[in-house]
Amino acid sequence: MTTMAINNRRVYGSLNSPATLRVLACLFEHDLDFEFVPIDLNAGEHKKKQFLSMNPFGQVPVYEDGDMKQFESRAIIRCMGFAYGKEGKELIYWDAKEQAVVANWIDVEDHQFEPPAMKLINKPTNGSTSDEAIVVGAKARLTKVLDVYEARLTHFKYLASNKYTIADVVHLPNLHALLGSKFKNLVESRPHVSEWCTEILARPAWAKVLEMQHKAQV
Amino acid sequence: MTTMAINNRRVYGSLNSPATLRVLACLFEHDLDFEFVPIDLNAGEHKKKQFLSMNPFGQVPVYEDGDMKQFESRAIIRCMGFAYGKEGKELIYWDAKEQAVVANWIDVEDHQFEPPAMKLINKPTNGSTSDEAIVVGAKARLTKVLDVYEARLTHFKYLASNKYTIADVVHLPNLHALLGSKFKNLVESRPHVSEWCTEILARPAWAKVLEMQHKAQV
Repeated sequence: MTTMAINNRRVYGSLNSPATLRVLACLFEHDLDFEFVPIDLNAGEHKKKQFLSMNPFGQVPVYEDGDMKQFESRAIIRCMGFAYGKEGKELIYWDAKEQAVVANWIDVEDHQFEPPAMKLINKPTNGSTSDEAIVVGAKARLTKVLDVYEARLTHFKYLASNKYTIADVVHLPNLHALLGSKFKNLVESRPHVSEWCTEILARPAWAKVLEMQHKAQV
Repeated sequence: MTTMAINNRRVYGSLNSPATLRVLACLFEHDLDFEFVPIDLNAGEHKKKQFLSMNPFGQVPVYEDGDMKQFESRAIIRCMGFAYGKEGKELIYWDAKEQAVVANWIDVEDHQFEPPAMKLINKPTNGSTSDEAIVVGAKARLTKVLDVYEARLTHFKYLASNKYTIADVVHLPNLHALLGSKFKNLVESRPHVSEWCTEILARPAWAKVLEMQHKAQV
């Protein structure tokens, strides 16, 4: 029953948070019902007592599935992959050595891709302009990362293998934002990276995330 | 056969690198034979062509298991947990929801614990003193993180559960270094964190890592 499913599965997050968006994309990939509970980051709701009781580090999203609460977005996605992967449609591999490659590229996204990407995407919130030195450094770093991706994607259709996996899912929000920024050429100038982006951002699950964002802004 | 096992499993790394040490600890936990190939970071060996062909991001360690090469330390450990976990002695859970909690606390170590811990542990290499503002910020951040750990460890013997898991393993190198630094009071002043540290640093697998370090320095 939908109602029961909704009662069991909740995402507390913000549609402005890449971490929240990647969890939503994964829920849609798995066709899972859930309730979305918006957390107002501007009002500092994530630093208040009630939220801290779910995530003591005060960050979105928090994911609730029955009596389990989890708050690291990539951990949530990994576990969703294992808990809800349907044979032939998994976003993971059941074999430990094949899954090792997926795990490797999830951590590459986490450690190599996201840090410089976020620096290029995020607009300073205090009205000041971006620190030029930070932008230059981030652009140089992301250039190197995308060169590695370009080489990788010459051999595989997706980042970990020829199958769409959670290693691709985790990239969605920041890739989407990068393509909407003045740095989109970093993606578009690399044919295999560009093709990969077009392919994964066209997933119906990602379209549903954008639709949620759009509806919330209307 | 030991020789065959050694031929199949190799760690390319440095005994000065926390990421390398956590992978070694995990290999010893699983009683796995391996060959250690030292990479000279001072000589920039990790930025040379031969090493970059194994890890395009030029970081240690690289782990080789048969025809699989993997280079993110936490990804290596996760997969070792799944590939070599023996019933009753696993450092993971086979159940997706129980493993979700382990995955959550691995990412906490990665995102919350390691960044400030590294800032307090690392001595500046260029002969200059540490930037005081960085140290103050890192200390404040780590204080908050260890307060969360203290609360968590009041309810569970280990970080993810009452069982020793890879969420604990990933902490070993930086915890060990922290206890050898002038910031050891951050650990020792918190009874549950202190007890947890004593317990996990006393694991025979960790003793074997320290022995490797000791032998290499003689």
